[in-house]
Amino acid sequence: MPVPMELSRIIISEINDKQIIYLKEIDGERTFPILIGLFEATMIHRRVKGFSSPRPLTHDLICQIVESLGGEFHDVVINDLKDHTYYAKLRVRADGEIIEIDSRPSDAIAISVTCEPHLPIYVEEDVLNEVMGE
Amino acid sequence: MPVPMELSRIIISEINDKQIIYLKEIDGERTFPILIGLFEATMIHRRVKGFSSPRPLTHDLICQIVESLGGEFHDVVINDLKDHTYYAKLRVRADGEIIEIDSRPSDAIAISVTCEPHLPIYVEEDVLNEVMGE
Repeated sequence: MPVPMELSRIIISEINDKQIIYLKEIDGERTFPILIGLFEATMIHRRVKGFSSPRPLTHDLICQIVESLGGEFHDVVINDLKDHTYYAKLRVRADGEIIEIDSRPSDAIAISVTCEPHLPIYVEEDVLNEVMGE
Repeated sequence: MPVPMELSRIIISEINDKQIIYLKEIDGERTFPILIGLFEATMIHRRVKGFSSPRPLTHDLICQIVESLGGEFHDVVINDLKDHTYYAKLRVRADGEIIEIDSRPSDAIAISVTCEPHLPIYVEEDVLNEVMGE
């Protein structure tokens, strides 16, 4: 079962190549970090803080493309962890069906906070068990 | 009339906030620079050099989203210049129609070099005249 989680913290350090975001269980206490790139972390931070931009930034463009093609973002799911790499999928509703698109968690979460209202974020129970057991 | 152009040069300097890409006329000599962000410049550089990534980067994801929704990128057009800011549109074919999506030139060009084969890049004659006359 996918577990509803939320973005609880973003730690950006320009000294490091990798930044850290934390997801936290909405109906519980489990939390874990994901390492992501500076660009994606900055995009997520801007959106969470509500900073606007005069021109569409890359994740705004993604939302616009989906809308222009008649789709609608549904939610994002972090569904696997292999060799210390998390995998996510974007779930998009189009023509009455749900289409799943492979994504890095960083882009998935950036999209989730760019959409209004923000998209639900889920993490598969297996992934959460694996990361909490480490 | 839109003029066919190609990416002729990318200048990346980590000291500066803005990077420079040059477009050059395919059937002529006109060329001009566009200032873009470091992330977008790095993405364009990686694609032009053929560097691959184990996971989809943001512009790979954009191509995947369009394909998953049954669309196909057609070309990109830089169609306006206002207050020293260039405007572009992505032209996507879907259901037999061409849909135009507003974009920054940096994302448009990153998408153009991420698609295989690369998408044609056009610049509106008016924009080219304006920038050459400056």
